[in-house]
Amino acid sequence: MVVRIRVHLKHPNLIAKALKLPIFAAQFRIMKLAAVGSVAFDAIETPFGKTDKIVGGAGSYIALAASFFVKEQSLISVVGGDFPKEFLGLLAAKGVDVSGIEVKKDEKTFFWSGRYHTDLNSRDTLITELNVLADFKPVVPTHAQNVGFLMLGNLSPAIQLSVIQQMATRPQLIAMDTMNFWMDIALDELKETIKHIDVLIINDEEARQLSGVYSLRKAAGIIRAMGPAILIIKKGEHGALLFHEANVFYAPALPLEEVFDPTGAGDTFAGGFMGYLAAAPTLNFETMKRAIIAGSALASFCVEKFGTERLLEINQEDLQQRMQEFVALSTFQLEA
Amino acid sequence: MVVRIRVHLKHPNLIAKALKLPIFAAQFRIMKLAAVGSVAFDAIETPFGKTDKIVGGAGSYIALAASFFVKEQSLISVVGGDFPKEFLGLLAAKGVDVSGIEVKKDEKTFFWSGRYHTDLNSRDTLITELNVLADFKPVVPTHAQNVGFLMLGNLSPAIQLSVIQQMATRPQLIAMDTMNFWMDIALDELKETIKHIDVLIINDEEARQLSGVYSLRKAAGIIRAMGPAILIIKKGEHGALLFHEANVFYAPALPLEEVFDPTGAGDTFAGGFMGYLAAAPTLNFETMKRAIIAGSALASFCVEKFGTERLLEINQEDLQQRMQEFVALSTFQLEA
Repeated sequence: MVVRIRVHLKHPNLIAKALKLPIFAAQFRIMKLAAVGSVAFDAIETPFGKTDKIVGGAGSYIALAASFFVKEQSLISVVGGDFPKEFLGLLAAKGVDVSGIEVKKDEKTFFWSGRYHTDLNSRDTLITELNVLADFKPVVPTHAQNVGFLMLGNLSPAIQLSVIQQMATRPQLIAMDTMNFWMDIALDELKETIKHIDVLIINDEEARQLSGVYSLRKAAGIIRAMGPAILIIKKGEHGALLFHEANVFYAPALPLEEVFDPTGAGDTFAGGFMGYLAAAPTLNFETMKRAIIAGSALASFCVEKFGTERLLEINQEDLQQRMQEFVALSTFQLEA
Repeated sequence: MVVRIRVHLKHPNLIAKALKLPIFAAQFRIMKLAAVGSVAFDAIETPFGKTDKIVGGAGSYIALAASFFVKEQSLISVVGGDFPKEFLGLLAAKGVDVSGIEVKKDEKTFFWSGRYHTDLNSRDTLITELNVLADFKPVVPTHAQNVGFLMLGNLSPAIQLSVIQQMATRPQLIAMDTMNFWMDIALDELKETIKHIDVLIINDEEARQLSGVYSLRKAAGIIRAMGPAILIIKKGEHGALLFHEANVFYAPALPLEEVFDPTGAGDTFAGGFMGYLAAAPTLNFETMKRAIIAGSALASFCVEKFGTERLLEINQEDLQQRMQEFVALSTFQLEA
């Protein structure tokens, strides 16, 4: 069923809902969140087992995580003809607009293979086949150029900047991930891109490399002076730090019985964070704290199984319960 | 002035207070906390500078930290004739009963010298002169054999056990620190000693070594099955975890502009924890959480200057303010 309502409506999705249309095309919904990131194949080896080629990529994790909070999101990416249409259908069923995912029929999907060390904190890359990602030029669909929230998954800083430049209106909040690789080979581009964003999401090692100092508090000051008003430093099993103006928030990480596969945890965290904010009625430091707990809770699920498996199993109730565990984990009162 | 009140009083300290005696001998006060630990000389080198021989040792840090909360504590240790009497006087002025610190006039005080690496997370020991500590046989003074709280600083497990065995009545709470060194050379004794305690306070690396597993949550289960009902895992700049029954608490660490000298931070944490509990009206999981925040706050001061310097500068108001910073750092509400 194709509905053609070619009038300029402020809330076409509400109209569609009122008409009880079960499925309505992305271009008739007001997108709240757009994300750019790889949609890929991964082959993962951990101390607990190994996988064949499974679906991965920053974009996949970001979109799946955000879908727990926001139904109006657009994912911008590229895959080859070998990529399973079922997964795109699965994303679409979760409200993800996949019209921004270019399918290059005659090419192959990005493929990464890695082996984690015993402590799961470090890994060796075994194979990187860029394939379609080699000349990825993301195109933001028209209907996603006015989103309030933009998440830039880990890609070259130049590509990330090109996405920002395609926005028709400046999003309320632009967040971005990056990695030490870009600091090594494209530091100037990286510094240019982060001038244009609001939230930088990196890990502690990356924060130290980017700032040149060891103290994370000092690093936060130096990095925030480079552009992003807000810095999130991910510390894996040690939680995450949120810095904004004079405020600091320390989000704990849930001590898990077992971390099965850390792949995608950082992207899941970022997707949960931005999804939560995109759905929140207000945007301030308190909301950002909650968003970090949301991202942390989703990341804590992500690592329980290989790849996206666990994120595809859990429901809203599981997530709410996990977020309550974070409350129990970190709540204390100085007065009895 | 020596006051001799040789009657059996339930609250001799109250009597002494009522008599407005400005100084009253330790044996007439009811001790709440006893601690055993080294009182020593340290020479420390960090990326920020180096010290001559300064006063250090687990016992010194424990007693100073605990003194912020409890005025009735007894420190059991040993020093040589070269140890400055001024420091013992300084402890006494803070309510620490130093009658359990044996002074071996003709011997030398334990001396440790170390150099921290740039990240301050690892260090090389340059010199260890056991001196008086070589044949340390702690003697618990009679007036400290009925304390409610006993803190066993890092010493050989056999020495720690000998202290427990000297108690006339079983303390309400026995806490103990140890280190990987004892796991390497005296694991059986260590396992015997921890059967008799309530709280084991170790760092993450030590918890992994003692349990043989990487997951701290699993490690907690294994270690708690060895004896201590309560386990605290210190993670340095990443905070601390408290495990008791099915409860877990994640205490954050304050992200500091600069860690100047980490020496004594762990002992300060333990001393603050036990001092807080010894002064608290009740002992339960909620009180223990607060006690961990108290210990963390004191440890965050400790690292700001060399040795015990910062602990000797700060006052109650500084401490209260720092503890409030921990509230601000970790408080969030899932609902707006």
